[in-house]
Amino acid sequence: MTRQAKVQDDPSADVQQDTAQRLLLAALRLFAGRGFHATSTRQIASVAGLSPAAMYVFYRSKAELLFEISRVGHVSVLTAIEAAVARFDAPPERMRELVKEFTSWHARHNTLSRVAQYELQHLEPQHYEEIAALRRRIAAIVRAELVHGAESGDFDVIDVPRTTLAILSLQIDVARWYSPSGQWSPEELGTTYAELVLRMLRSGAPH
Amino acid sequence: MTRQAKVQDDPSADVQQDTAQRLLLAALRLFAGRGFHATSTRQIASVAGLSPAAMYVFYRSKAELLFEISRVGHVSVLTAIEAAVARFDAPPERMRELVKEFTSWHARHNTLSRVAQYELQHLEPQHYEEIAALRRRIAAIVRAELVHGAESGDFDVIDVPRTTLAILSLQIDVARWYSPSGQWSPEELGTTYAELVLRMLRSGAPH
Repeated sequence: MTRQAKVQDDPSADVQQDTAQRLLLAALRLFAGRGFHATSTRQIASVAGLSPAAMYVFYRSKAELLFEISRVGHVSVLTAIEAAVARFDAPPERMRELVKEFTSWHARHNTLSRVAQYELQHLEPQHYEEIAALRRRIAAIVRAELVHGAESGDFDVIDVPRTTLAILSLQIDVARWYSPSGQWSPEELGTTYAELVLRMLRSGAPH
Repeated sequence: MTRQAKVQDDPSADVQQDTAQRLLLAALRLFAGRGFHATSTRQIASVAGLSPAAMYVFYRSKAELLFEISRVGHVSVLTAIEAAVARFDAPPERMRELVKEFTSWHARHNTLSRVAQYELQHLEPQHYEEIAALRRRIAAIVRAELVHGAESGDFDVIDVPRTTLAILSLQIDVARWYSPSGQWSPEELGTTYAELVLRMLRSGAPH
C-alpha cells in the first residue's frame, strides 16, 4: 500500500505522522540545547504543543524519543555513505566520495549528529544494541574500502583497524565543533577532509 | 617558600590539599560516569567522605569543580605538547612527537579528557573563557608547526586552518572512544596517529 493510498484510507494518518514528527523535532532541539538529562518530557510536550498525556500516545518516554532520533540519524548517514561508494568503482574515488558525504553529512546535520553521537549512553540497553549494530555497519563500510584499496594496490594502509578508527574520528568529531555560522560550508569541509584521508592512504616513501 | 617549608609552617596545609584533591577525584568520577548535570553536590561530597557544608569550604559549586578539572586537564595537555615539540628541531620530528604525546595523553587520561572535552557547556561564562584561552594556545601550537614545516619545505599543507582542525579532531575524539580495556596501548595509538598525520603533510603527487 502506498503512502497516498494509506492517507486516503485513513485521513488521520497524516495528522498523526505530523504530531510524531513535531515531537521528534522538539526533543531534538531540547536535547541538543541542554542535553538529554536536563530535558523533561513535560518540556518536550510543551515545545511540541501537546499535553504530556498526549505525548505518551506517540512515545512512551524521552529515552524512546532519543532512540528514534539516533536511529533516524544513523540510518541516514549509513544510506548516504552506501550511496556514495556505489557511485564509483576505483578505490580512491570511492573513498573520496565516502569521506565527502560522511563529513558533509555531519556538518549539514550538526544538531542531529551531535545528539546522535554524544547522548548514546542514555539509551536503554536494547535500543543501544540496535544503534551499535548500525555503527558497526558504518565502520564495516570504511574498513571494507581500506581492505579493497590495499588489495588493489591503490592504498598503502599503515594498520586497517586504527586507520578505520582515525577516519571515523575525523567525521564524528565534526559533530562536536561544526557551526553553520562558521567559515566553511559542509561541502568545502568534505572536500578537504577527503584529500586528507586519501593522503593517509597514499603509497610512497615517508619522510 | 617551598612546599616542604610551607608544610612545616602549617601542618594543616597537606590535609587541606588532600581533601581538595579527594573532592576533585570524586567529582571527576561522577561527572565521567553519569555526566555533570546528573551529578549532585551532595553525591560529590558523599563520595569524598565529606558533608556538603564541608565541601563548600573548598569549592563553592559543582561548576567550580568542573572548572578546576577542566583547567588541570587543559594545562596538563598544553604542557605535554609544548615539551614534545621542544625536544626536536626538524618539523617532521616535532610534529611526530606532538601527535604522539597529544594522542597518548587523551588515551592515558581518558576519564579526565572525556570530562574536559565534553562538559564544557556547563562551565560558567568567565570560566569558559579561561578554558577557551587554553584551547586557543593548544590550537596555536599545532598551527605554528604546520606553518613552520610548510615554510621549510618539509610539509605540503592543503589548507592550514582545516588541517589544524583535522589534527585536533583526531586527538580529541580519542577521549570519546578510547577504553583502557581495548586492544591498543596509548603509545601504540600515538605512534600510528603520528604516522597518519605525517602522511597528511607529505609532499608529492596525489593519486
